[in-house]
Amino acid sequence: MAGSSFGTLFRVTTFGESHGPAVGCIVDGCPAGIPFDLAQVQQDLDRRRPGQSKLTTQRKEGDAVEVLSGVFEGVTTGTPIALQVRNTDQRSKDYSELKDLFRPSHADFTYHAKYGGVRDWRGGGRASYREAIGRVAAGAVARQLLASWYGVETVGYVLQVADIRGQIDQATVTQEQVEEHITRCPDPSASEKMIAAIEQARRDGDSLGGIVECVVRNVPAGLGEPVFDKLTASLAHALMSLPATRGFEIGEGFGAATLRGTTHNDAFETRDGKTRTRTNHSGGIQGGISNGEDIVLRVAFKPTATIHAAQETVTIDGEPTIFQAKGRHDPCVLPRAVAAVEAMVLLVLADHALMQQATKRQ
Amino acid sequence: MAGSSFGTLFRVTTFGESHGPAVGCIVDGCPAGIPFDLAQVQQDLDRRRPGQSKLTTQRKEGDAVEVLSGVFEGVTTGTPIALQVRNTDQRSKDYSELKDLFRPSHADFTYHAKYGGVRDWRGGGRASYREAIGRVAAGAVARQLLASWYGVETVGYVLQVADIRGQIDQATVTQEQVEEHITRCPDPSASEKMIAAIEQARRDGDSLGGIVECVVRNVPAGLGEPVFDKLTASLAHALMSLPATRGFEIGEGFGAATLRGTTHNDAFETRDGKTRTRTNHSGGIQGGISNGEDIVLRVAFKPTATIHAAQETVTIDGEPTIFQAKGRHDPCVLPRAVAAVEAMVLLVLADHALMQQATKRQ
Amino acid sequence: MAGSSFGTLFRVTTFGESHGPAVGCIVDGCPAGIPFDLAQVQQDLDRRRPGQSKLTTQRKEGDAVEVLSGVFEGVTTGTPIALQVRNTDQRSKDYSELKDLFRPSHADFTYHAKYGGVRDWRGGGRASYREAIGRVAAGAVARQLLASWYGVETVGYVLQVADIRGQIDQATVTQEQVEEHITRCPDPSASEKMIAAIEQARRDGDSLGGIVECVVRNVPAGLGEPVFDKLTASLAHALMSLPATRGFEIGEGFGAATLRGTTHNDAFETRDGKTRTRTNHSGGIQGGISNGEDIVLRVAFKPTATIHAAQETVTIDGEPTIFQAKGRHDPCVLPRAVAAVEAMVLLVLADHALMQQATKRQ
Amino acid sequence: MAGSSFGTLFRVTTFGESHGPAVGCIVDGCPAGIPFDLAQVQQDLDRRRPGQSKLTTQRKEGDAVEVLSGVFEGVTTGTPIALQVRNTDQRSKDYSELKDLFRPSHADFTYHAKYGGVRDWRGGGRASYREAIGRVAAGAVARQLLASWYGVETVGYVLQVADIRGQIDQATVTQEQVEEHITRCPDPSASEKMIAAIEQARRDGDSLGGIVECVVRNVPAGLGEPVFDKLTASLAHALMSLPATRGFEIGEGFGAATLRGTTHNDAFETRDGKTRTRTNHSGGIQGGISNGEDIVLRVAFKPTATIHAAQETVTIDGEPTIFQAKGRHDPCVLPRAVAAVEAMVLLVLADHALMQQATKRQ
Repeated sequence: MAGSSFGTLFRVTTFGESHGPAVGCIVDGCPAGIPFDLAQVQQDLDRRRPGQSKLTTQRKEGDAVEVLSGVFEGVTTGTPIALQVRNTDQRSKDYSELKDLFRPSHADFTYHAKYGGVRDWRGGGRASYREAIGRVAAGAVARQLLASWYGVETVGYVLQVADIRGQIDQATVTQEQVEEHITRCPDPSASEKMIAAIEQARRDGDSLGGIVECVVRNVPAGLGEPVFDKLTASLAHALMSLPATRGFEIGEGFGAATLRGTTHNDAFETRDGKTRTRTNHSGGIQGGISNGEDIVLRVAFKPTATIHAAQETVTIDGEPTIFQAKGRHDPCVLPRAVAAVEAMVLLVLADHALMQQATKRQ
Repeated sequence: MAGSSFGTLFRVTTFGESHGPAVGCIVDGCPAGIPFDLAQVQQDLDRRRPGQSKLTTQRKEGDAVEVLSGVFEGVTTGTPIALQVRNTDQRSKDYSELKDLFRPSHADFTYHAKYGGVRDWRGGGRASYREAIGRVAAGAVARQLLASWYGVETVGYVLQVADIRGQIDQATVTQEQVEEHITRCPDPSASEKMIAAIEQARRDGDSLGGIVECVVRNVPAGLGEPVFDKLTASLAHALMSLPATRGFEIGEGFGAATLRGTTHNDAFETRDGKTRTRTNHSGGIQGGISNGEDIVLRVAFKPTATIHAAQETVTIDGEPTIFQAKGRHDPCVLPRAVAAVEAMVLLVLADHALMQQATKRQ
Repeated sequence: MAGSSFGTLFRVTTFGESHGPAVGCIVDGCPAGIPFDLAQVQQDLDRRRPGQSKLTTQRKEGDAVEVLSGVFEGVTTGTPIALQVRNTDQRSKDYSELKDLFRPSHADFTYHAKYGGVRDWRGGGRASYREAIGRVAAGAVARQLLASWYGVETVGYVLQVADIRGQIDQATVTQEQVEEHITRCPDPSASEKMIAAIEQARRDGDSLGGIVECVVRNVPAGLGEPVFDKLTASLAHALMSLPATRGFEIGEGFGAATLRGTTHNDAFETRDGKTRTRTNHSGGIQGGISNGEDIVLRVAFKPTATIHAAQETVTIDGEPTIFQAKGRHDPCVLPRAVAAVEAMVLLVLADHALMQQATKRQ
Repeated sequence: MAGSSFGTLFRVTTFGESHGPAVGCIVDGCPAGIPFDLAQVQQDLDRRRPGQSKLTTQRKEGDAVEVLSGVFEGVTTGTPIALQVRNTDQRSKDYSELKDLFRPSHADFTYHAKYGGVRDWRGGGRASYREAIGRVAAGAVARQLLASWYGVETVGYVLQVADIRGQIDQATVTQEQVEEHITRCPDPSASEKMIAAIEQARRDGDSLGGIVECVVRNVPAGLGEPVFDKLTASLAHALMSLPATRGFEIGEGFGAATLRGTTHNDAFETRDGKTRTRTNHSGGIQGGISNGEDIVLRVAFKPTATIHAAQETVTIDGEPTIFQAKGRHDPCVLPRAVAAVEAMVLLVLADHALMQQATKRQ
């Protein structure tokens, strides 16, 4: 529970503040000999980056990634892979007013309470979505490992923004379809409505929440530990560690509460010589362990805490004050959150894949 | 990620199979000098035990707990606390038909895949709800620590069974109110309807899911690590490690997806000399760290996989077969799950409480 | 760093105090399908047990081990293996005088300092050599895993007692030869002298230290992590966690300080189609990773702290007092320490073996 | 056991290869509000650096350290501290002959075995003493924490080179005295002899081993976990993870084997109102826990594996060949190892200090 590390065998440690010199990560435990493509890491980072479209904040963050170790002659060496992005477009003065007050529903007060009053208040410091750069870069390494070993394919997308919910075929949706839409919602009609809603929220100085869904294909059966580290538990941990998340579900999720056993149970059958389930209400995980079916999960995000309306709050000395955010902000973080959701899913799967290998003698 | 351990500083390791000699746990890391009451551990175990009411399975499990170490002259000594319950009412023959097939939506197939065909098939083996005995016993230790240090109070209850949802005042509900109802739903009207629904499901040989809600009071501000081990993430991990869970949410949860920032944000104010939020949409956690407000979370459970209807499945050799469960089973695990939900919440809080002390010099 | 757990993947957690109800361990992470022989566990425990010979304390400790979980139909199931020994021959009254003072060079004062004055003073409580029962039992599981996977063979023996040092051929010594001597020193002549020295020390009410050496054969090349968890480091950690240890060395050990590179370096050659070293100054580990040669290590033990001479000390209130130990005590723990040394070596190797498998795709 | 991380609460992860773009570390878990002086980090790095004197290799390594995160307005913020040194003076061509053979007593063969043939052969890759830069930088952070909290003072020095052993008064020796000698042996007469011996070894193309001793003052009583993570065990782990180490001892060390209990036991007395020991044979640690006396430990280093003599070895294909090292190398690493020894000691103490705070309620 070192706060900035995740994973037991495929282990990522991130560092960096929004307005410090750099952000990045060390990935420790990646097997040797995995083909490593830095361009793929950059591609994942670009999907997280602000300024990709009219929907997202207009800050220019180049986010050019550099690899400092652990890769030699195009493959991983088994030693720690350090990945780093220098911070550039920093305007600390935009934030100086944040020094002495707590923004509502941000981490200002809780950091203040936790760290005895010490806090890097510039742009949220560590509690900034720039922290996710380290996660996304590490996830890109996990992606290459899982593709190399199993052909794992991860497709995340925006399922819902506010009350607009897309109709998406989990079985067939592709990353290409997702990337065709600046919303990252592959249902064209819902995507249009989402754009309108987000632009309206921006005009209102307000913000919107939503839901990201993620489908993972070609996961081998047998990943997950049986008790505390069920695959479900690790995924929940990973996803709920992303900023602004408020809920997690697998398979039927909260909807399972209203089903009966006769409806929810997935009958087994033999298909193509393999034990398969006829339906996939379980979302690919049974007894906490993958069963070889597609993993399907959803993550709920609250509306961004930063809004332009005036809000009541208090100073660090407890005096009442009014806070009104200035500057550039995302009215809806969902389209940029897809990359982070995928990264966390990939980190969990890579870790459990190594864990599962550990007990098999070659 | 040793599958049967949880926690970094307040660390529990559980052991035991449904039909082995015993189940239990070791709690390592509990501070010295905490008053220890074994009767309180037994009381928590009794809430998990089957056979408590007409609603739950009629197996008689005495579940008498024994403490083997770590307690001396009425207080904890700081060394590992081993707690153990002997298994008694075991009827392995009831289960012998399970040896060669995979029960739908149970862990039989995934254990088979994970462990290369080795599986203790008696009563689900490790993947039995008896495994939760170790969790509940450990949670009872955490409860005593947190009560002693902060006066933490945890109230879990059944919020929903099938589509019957109780109306419960989170701010005032007490454990006593919960225990007045065999459903552990403190809304008398909803509780009556739940009883009827559960009895109908039993008559139908079917099963029901539902939602447990848990409120935690008197949690100090500042618990939680800022990145991967946010308090939200640890809670999600802990709760989603319980058998049959399908979803987790904190505060407004999935409902937050449809709110706007202006509605969801919690304004700060000074109350009784403390920084408090006026509303609690955040469910007591902001930026992954507790803010001193009540923590409110919900966990969705799927309908029990064991039903009496005939179900299609396959044998371990892939041959189609029909499985029909016999014997005594819970049509709805929710009333017994409350104790386990509280235990996991308490384990998380105890671990984060120690973590938070670690960085403070006395 | 949960104080009573060891290992990352092959993980043991021990519990129990000298005069509590029981001692034992949970072994989590043992692969499924390993043949499990409880008699072998008992055999290892018997080698640690007091009362084996005239040399060791005459307490009768039956130390009958029971397995509570994780084994089914003669093989491990992959789930936690709980092993337990009930305490029987406890005479707490022998120890009541220990309640209010600090025995010199025991753990009484440091436990008092660490745990804020709370301490189970009966027979040393947790800081008793009975704690090693959990270690030895766990080591016996590791032994069965390593024998099954690689044919690993571990031969520990007493190399030195006081200034009497045996002449032992590391390449050929067997466990049978070791067990022929109550000293567990397989050099007959040195063994005789050790017996005389130990009996003299007993007559003097004094105690002796010594050195245990351990040879491990058939360890595959490639075990060990390259930086902080070098195999050397893990072994040092494991061995120096045994009570009364004061030093650890590998290969040439402290003697290497006086050699030159030309003398110490081990030339490589091809033998039987394998890369082998001609000499083994490195003791089987290079760059922190096993090279396939025999691992050779030594552990120094201080003389037992319990002696019958009157010693100056202070009470828990700081008042000067005299302490004189009564009752039955080992004047030299070395013969009984061999089992614990082997156990720790086996636990380290099992953990690293799983770690090494983790990064290999099957 | 992620190979490149160390510590549970005060946790360091290092990265970097000898000839990659950079080396460095992330320190996670340092409390907030500790005054941070980057110049002190640089000072510690300069003590590890080659080219400090005529005794050490003449490569020019600037080793200028940069802090990338976790420090704000002169104090630590509680978030990860990333420290980095760019590699500059790299002459990869010097090493190209290493690609296809295994240097005797280096890590070439064992890395090859562990990583399936993948290996960054330039300058030893990860198995280079440049990796220690991350350790030393992290240790410098631990130094500032421990000085701030307890006034801990660490004095490491070269006790022995080959068979030349210094006479040093553990109770009074200072870092200033150590730094007066290019050998880092504060006994002027022994230091002179060591210089002569090292220069002779250089002329011979040979190398020397030795022993570093380290004294730590002002460590509070109560640090260390009682079973597997005894302070002794953690120190042994940390020190034996340094390259080229072959032995570790605490207090009387291997010498304790020849003492009797009456001689080795440390009598307690009350001094200045505190419980103190009259002698310090235990080296400041009893029962695995610090007792408030000076911690005294020693580490044995083998002679550097790199020598200029021709050595028999094999190629990666198993063919016999001759290897003769070229270029600049240290004939004796001891003077530069002092900084790394201190760093590891400091990392262990910082970790245990946090661990000890964890169980104390404020």
